[in-house]
Parts: sequence; structure tokens; C-alpha cells
Amino acid sequence: MQIRTATEADWPAIWPFFRRIVEAGETYTYPRDMAEPAARRTWMLPPPGRTVVAVDDDGTVLGSAKMNPNHMGGASHIAGASFMVDPDRSGKGVGRALGAHVLEWAKGEGYRAMQFNAVVETNTGAVALWKSLGFEIVATLEEGFQHPKHGYVGLHIMYQRF
Amino acid sequence: MQIRTATEADWPAIWPFFRRIVEAGETYTYPRDMAEPAARRTWMLPPPGRTVVAVDDDGTVLGSAKMNPNHMGGASHIAGASFMVDPDRSGKGVGRALGAHVLEWAKGEGYRAMQFNAVVETNTGAVALWKSLGFEIVATLEEGFQHPKHGYVGLHIMYQRF
Repeated sequence: MQIRTATEADWPAIWPFFRRIVEAGETYTYPRDMAEPAARRTWMLPPPGRTVVAVDDDGTVLGSAKMNPNHMGGASHIAGASFMVDPDRSGKGVGRALGAHVLEWAKGEGYRAMQFNAVVETNTGAVALWKSLGFEIVATLEEGFQHPKHGYVGLHIMYQRF
Repeated sequence: MQIRTATEADWPAIWPFFRRIVEAGETYTYPRDMAEPAARRTWMLPPPGRTVVAVDDDGTVLGSAKMNPNHMGGASHIAGASFMVDPDRSGKGVGRALGAHVLEWAKGEGYRAMQFNAVVETNTGAVALWKSLGFEIVATLEEGFQHPKHGYVGLHIMYQRF
């Protein structure tokens, strides 16, 4: 597996699993019917943001991450990031590899911390992964997320200083 | 004091204290050198957001607030808001009146909660005001804000369910 900067040519490989994950409505605070152009603008970030893909040896896109300043001005030293792994390619360590990559990027860019704004508490795999990569749950917004199967569940804010 | 929806005609009265507050860099996570067009786009929100002004009996703009969905999709029932009171008009209850107005608006629009993403911990007047209006500090991002006088200080996330 290799992680490299995504180009516009990667978007057609990202969009199918982006759409599948967002339509499911279980993990992302994006509109479930998000149209393709809005999805592309949301995910494919120009500098100072960055978008990467994790690719297999044969070039297959396994997942993607975007990273960006989470705040402006006096809080612009806090980075943010989002992750999507193709559900058909899960369980291969793609999320962990992307998470580690994004943390290295943020440290290299001079950020002092990373904040995840909205981690759905029923997304326990992600919560455990981010904890293992050094993040703490600093708050849970009670009933912050309407889950299509579980109703209102908590929305974690996770944070890590470098 | 009256609170009413802001129009483009109000912007020239808002911009001087917006600029003064943002240039000071002590309370807002906006770039301190934010240019006027970016400031106007940031503050004067179209629906589903809304911007209001608090005006004195003679029509003088004392302060302003903007309110909006804080998240999309499954978390779109959480509202957000931002407040600015003209420093030359502080101490008259303008912030409290705007806060109460914004909470009423959010409840009336069907939101189920309100989240403030970034309240600088040294802005103790604001912290106390939001607490008195029912908000809790659900997290403090340690060293989340670089204050021009105090260095790195905490950034509170405040939350209230309705």
C-alpha cells in the first residue's frame, strides 16, 4: 500500500465509495444525497489543505483522506482531517495508514494539534482507531447525531496535541 | 433596544466594530487582517442562516449576531451562532439580548441544540454569559488559541440541548 497526493484523475475512483458511505448516513455529517460536484469540492482540497489516496500495488484506490486547517486566525495551528475507506477494502489497515500519514503531515506542516469535529459514537471502529493513534474524546455532544438505525446518538469531538 | 434581521444596509455600521474586534485577535478565530469583502460574506448570512442587529431607540447599531446550522446531514439539528457587540456599547446587556434572541430563533426553527465551536477561555465575560443562558463547557481544547497577550490558551466548546 502506498499513500500519495490525490489528483483530479483519482476522483472517479473515490466517488463510488464516498457516495456509498455518505448515502448510508451512519458516519458522516454530510447530506446523504450530496451531489457529485459538491462532494468533489468538499473532498478534493487545494492548498493549504491536501487530499491523499491509499493505493494498492496494482494502483487500486483503497481509501482517501483530506486534511486541512480546522480553524482560522488564532486557532489556525489546529488541523482537521476526514477519512474514507472503501467498504469493500476494509480490514486491511488502510484507515490506520491514512491516520498515521495525516498526523505526520500535520506535524510536518507545523500544526500543533489535530481536532476531529464529529465522530459518531456508534462508529466504534473509528473511535478505537483514533484513540490508538493518540486522540482523546474531549467531548461528546449528547444526541448530536441522528443515526438512521439507532436514532439520536452522541457525536464525539476528538483532539490530540503534538 | 430592538433586535431585527440585518440587511445589507446595516453592514457599514457593523464593519467598524467587526474589524476592531477581529483585529484585536483576542476573541475570534478569524484572520486578524480579514478583508472587508470576506468579513461581509462571513457575517451576512443568507437562509438557512440569519444575521440580526441590536439597535438602540435612535437606530444606532449596538451589536450583531449570526446564526446558522453548525453541521450538515445527521447533525444538522445542531445550530451555531456568533456574536459581536460594539466595544463602545458594551455593558448594556446587548450580548445577553442577542444570545436570548438566537436561542429563541433556533428553537423556533426546530433545532434541538446549539454548539459554540470556539470560545476563548480568557473571554471570561462571554463564558459567564453563555453559562447563564444555559450553555455548558463540554470541552476545552488545550492551547487551542494563540492569544496576542496571553500566548496559548484554551478554546472552549460550549453546548446546550433544548
